[in-house]
Amino acid sequence: MQLIDGKATAAQIKAEIAEEVKQIVENGGKRPHLAAILVGHDGGSETYVRNKVLACEACGFKSTLIRFEDNVSEEELLAKVDELNRDEDVDGFIVQLPLPRHISEQKVIEAIDYRKDVDGFHPINVGRLSIGLPCYISATPNGMLELLRRYGIETSGKHCVVLGRSNIVGKPMATLMMQKAYPGDCTVTVCHSRTKNLKEICRTADILIAAMGQPNFVTADMVKEGAVVLDVGTTRVPNPAMKSGFKLTGDVKFDEVAPKCSFITPVPGGVGPMTICSLMRNTLLAGKKAIYG
Amino acid sequence: MQLIDGKATAAQIKAEIAEEVKQIVENGGKRPHLAAILVGHDGGSETYVRNKVLACEACGFKSTLIRFEDNVSEEELLAKVDELNRDEDVDGFIVQLPLPRHISEQKVIEAIDYRKDVDGFHPINVGRLSIGLPCYISATPNGMLELLRRYGIETSGKHCVVLGRSNIVGKPMATLMMQKAYPGDCTVTVCHSRTKNLKEICRTADILIAAMGQPNFVTADMVKEGAVVLDVGTTRVPNPAMKSGFKLTGDVKFDEVAPKCSFITPVPGGVGPMTICSLMRNTLLAGKKAIYG
Repeated sequence: MQLIDGKATAAQIKAEIAEEVKQIVENGGKRPHLAAILVGHDGGSETYVRNKVLACEACGFKSTLIRFEDNVSEEELLAKVDELNRDEDVDGFIVQLPLPRHISEQKVIEAIDYRKDVDGFHPINVGRLSIGLPCYISATPNGMLELLRRYGIETSGKHCVVLGRSNIVGKPMATLMMQKAYPGDCTVTVCHSRTKNLKEICRTADILIAAMGQPNFVTADMVKEGAVVLDVGTTRVPNPAMKSGFKLTGDVKFDEVAPKCSFITPVPGGVGPMTICSLMRNTLLAGKKAIYG
Repeated sequence: MQLIDGKATAAQIKAEIAEEVKQIVENGGKRPHLAAILVGHDGGSETYVRNKVLACEACGFKSTLIRFEDNVSEEELLAKVDELNRDEDVDGFIVQLPLPRHISEQKVIEAIDYRKDVDGFHPINVGRLSIGLPCYISATPNGMLELLRRYGIETSGKHCVVLGRSNIVGKPMATLMMQKAYPGDCTVTVCHSRTKNLKEICRTADILIAAMGQPNFVTADMVKEGAVVLDVGTTRVPNPAMKSGFKLTGDVKFDEVAPKCSFITPVPGGVGPMTICSLMRNTLLAGKKAIYG
């Protein structure tokens, strides 16, 4: 069994990006600039955005954090999106989700210029991903692809089972794993809450991607000997023994599943750190105008 | 075994559309208008476009056929697309594919205003389909959904196996069959040229969708007793006994597979007629500005 060290891989990628940014700036190029809009004071969102700002620093990017209170109107938020769309210094930007209920997330996402949509949530980027065209791939699937790539994990002809059909993980990951490419060329099965014989299907997986957000859902009896297991779950399970008061818990019962795997990601330190790293990679692409010119 | 009669279903839907158009026009509304651009004289394309024009007539739509010779420049073609985008009388339009090699199909598709893209090939429509937002669903998948709906075929929790990963059939059909909706809520497996154990996987399918374009590929030993089989294949296999010189041949060996099925589509007369019908449904939606206002 080999542990897939997402933390170390992410650190390495950030170092590579920092080196490239240094070269760009030395050659008179522009330092990539990521802006983030944060609405309200949700604990999770605060943490994510803080980590994104820190990652920008590690990569040598310029970053701008724009804060709104919970009671910001949709109109004000859309006006800021419009401003960032037109700001030539901003290469890419994100609006941290979730948003307060009185604001339509979809409307905000669609208001972002797709050429600056480094989260890859705009329908144009989602559509181009599906078609197989260059685009901003959303962070979590992109992070998993990079782990497969960096660990040299064979994918062609393998059976990849994706647990979960969310728009930001399950569906794009399924699309990417079936594409004619490496990583890809997998036979892909997508399972979800309505799936029957879930255990049986999981046991046929060469590559199992757990993304339902159900802590410890995947048990040893659901995993084939030698499988590759990527765990996207990051549920905060209350735990008074932890300083934070919770324990970040994956969808996979790691202790019993790991011994059966050829490769497995831990939680934390697996897929998670790669997610912000993917955002950094997209920001670098945006800064270089590599995808949309 | 029940035969799914795509021809009769398509005729019924066209009659329903014609009735609705009659009402719209009687109430002072606008007759839906579909324009089609045809480049060159490819036999298949000529047939498809002719059938689309005939279907428009049957539905009471206005239709406009715009022809270019094979040597039309990409620039000229794009200028016509732009003209149709701006023509307020045209509700929707299509550019019949394939295009000559000197023209980028993707460039042409992306030049079409997505609000008039009744083929559903524009990245915005593809992306919205993936996200689960209202959009123009491409014709072949949409036709199959309608057959499942009209024949009241249960889909929730079923295992749907899709053979083929094309952008216009396999991928969107997989996405639609896994969505939280009816038809949908299937566990979905996508197989393709790199798939191992293809026969074995097919045998687990409650709903089998054959869309690889390999005549008679699916044999009786690949189909579970009671399965629903939808055959998208329409390969023209040379046959001197036919007046046309060819026989339209599906991906399914119908004679031996049909007895095992609960439902099956024949070729011709199954999925095929529904395809143009779906285009008509999208054109009606475009005429009513039902999706993008």
